[in-house]
Amino acid sequence: MSDSAKAAAGKRFTVDTEGLDWRRREPVPLPTTLVAAKRAFYERGFHGTSIRDIASRAGVSLPTLYYHHDNKLGILVELLEAAMTSVLAWVGAAIEEGRTPSEKLSNAIESIVLHMTSDLELASVASEFRHLDPEDPRREPYIAMRTETENMLADVIQAGLDSGEFRFDQDVKDVLRYLFGACQAVTTWYRPSGARTPAEVAASYASIALRVVGAQDTNNND
Amino acid sequence: MSDSAKAAAGKRFTVDTEGLDWRRREPVPLPTTLVAAKRAFYERGFHGTSIRDIASRAGVSLPTLYYHHDNKLGILVELLEAAMTSVLAWVGAAIEEGRTPSEKLSNAIESIVLHMTSDLELASVASEFRHLDPEDPRREPYIAMRTETENMLADVIQAGLDSGEFRFDQDVKDVLRYLFGACQAVTTWYRPSGARTPAEVAASYASIALRVVGAQDTNNND
Repeated sequence: MSDSAKAAAGKRFTVDTEGLDWRRREPVPLPTTLVAAKRAFYERGFHGTSIRDIASRAGVSLPTLYYHHDNKLGILVELLEAAMTSVLAWVGAAIEEGRTPSEKLSNAIESIVLHMTSDLELASVASEFRHLDPEDPRREPYIAMRTETENMLADVIQAGLDSGEFRFDQDVKDVLRYLFGACQAVTTWYRPSGARTPAEVAASYASIALRVVGAQDTNNND
Repeated sequence: MSDSAKAAAGKRFTVDTEGLDWRRREPVPLPTTLVAAKRAFYERGFHGTSIRDIASRAGVSLPTLYYHHDNKLGILVELLEAAMTSVLAWVGAAIEEGRTPSEKLSNAIESIVLHMTSDLELASVASEFRHLDPEDPRREPYIAMRTETENMLADVIQAGLDSGEFRFDQDVKDVLRYLFGACQAVTTWYRPSGARTPAEVAASYASIALRVVGAQDTNNND
């Protein structure tokens, strides 16, 4: 793949899931400046954060920051891409591991919820996506990866419908939006200090997702 | 009720649902300054908005703004209370109208989704709640109303479990959080110009909610 094709596909960050357990998730590894940025955006929002705040939190000078990044919007784009690259890779690995549509969906939802709980700050950046101008071409790699993730899930749900394993009246797209919305909302209430462990939340959301798609046999027959 | 008791109960805004159809919802009536504030918070976030922005959008001077409101945090509190007062009143009316736990839950979810779609800007303010200091006593009326709303829903869900109409393994609290999360996420993707009408989205979410609680007979037997 050429460098330009890689950039177009939004693969500036890569996640190699080969041989790794998708259930054991850590915060996505990021350079110091992006760690500072995700924290600042999480605490004060995109508009409440200045490029100066980011440089100061990262302990670098403004010229150094500008050497590595375009501007504040560019940093947002990099964070969105890092988050979505990670989601795409891990959801792919989680789906791969399932044998039936139910197992695949359950794994995928677990994986998405673990993304939210393992890196709350990065996962919350998704809510700042709307600050990107609809005409901004830098949205494209993020959207392409988001669409790819949605399509993987849509295929799993469609397979479940086709086999009679899943049953519901809504469009697959509407059900997907519901599932993603519920998962994304985890970032609004989940706190690492809370009563539920990431694994508990993930398992609970996976089990509810099977009811959302009207799975006829929600017990995994291991 | 004394003025202080009213303030404590967060009844600065009142919504009289008597004789009104909870399915026909309009944006919550607010003074000009609060309309300006909800727009500004929606577009630029709480931290990205200055008190000067709000005054300028509302077409009033800073002294006039300060005559009516404490400060930016005070304005956020007023918006949160206005939103939650409306939710509480309309969800109450919607539950009242249902005869069975399934009908009550379905109505409640419809009502909550209509809150999101009929006043996207006000409904989105909920995501700014985390900017209030945990020690800030002004959080209390909002939290009290939110808890009251959650309790109404919890009672409906518990009644459904008790009668065998609903079946699931999770805690009622976890299921409630899931349902509220999915509904709140409507503000992140719903746009009035989109393909789905508010009534369609609301009906779809109500129907999915019945699957989330494992309702045994999801057809309303009218």
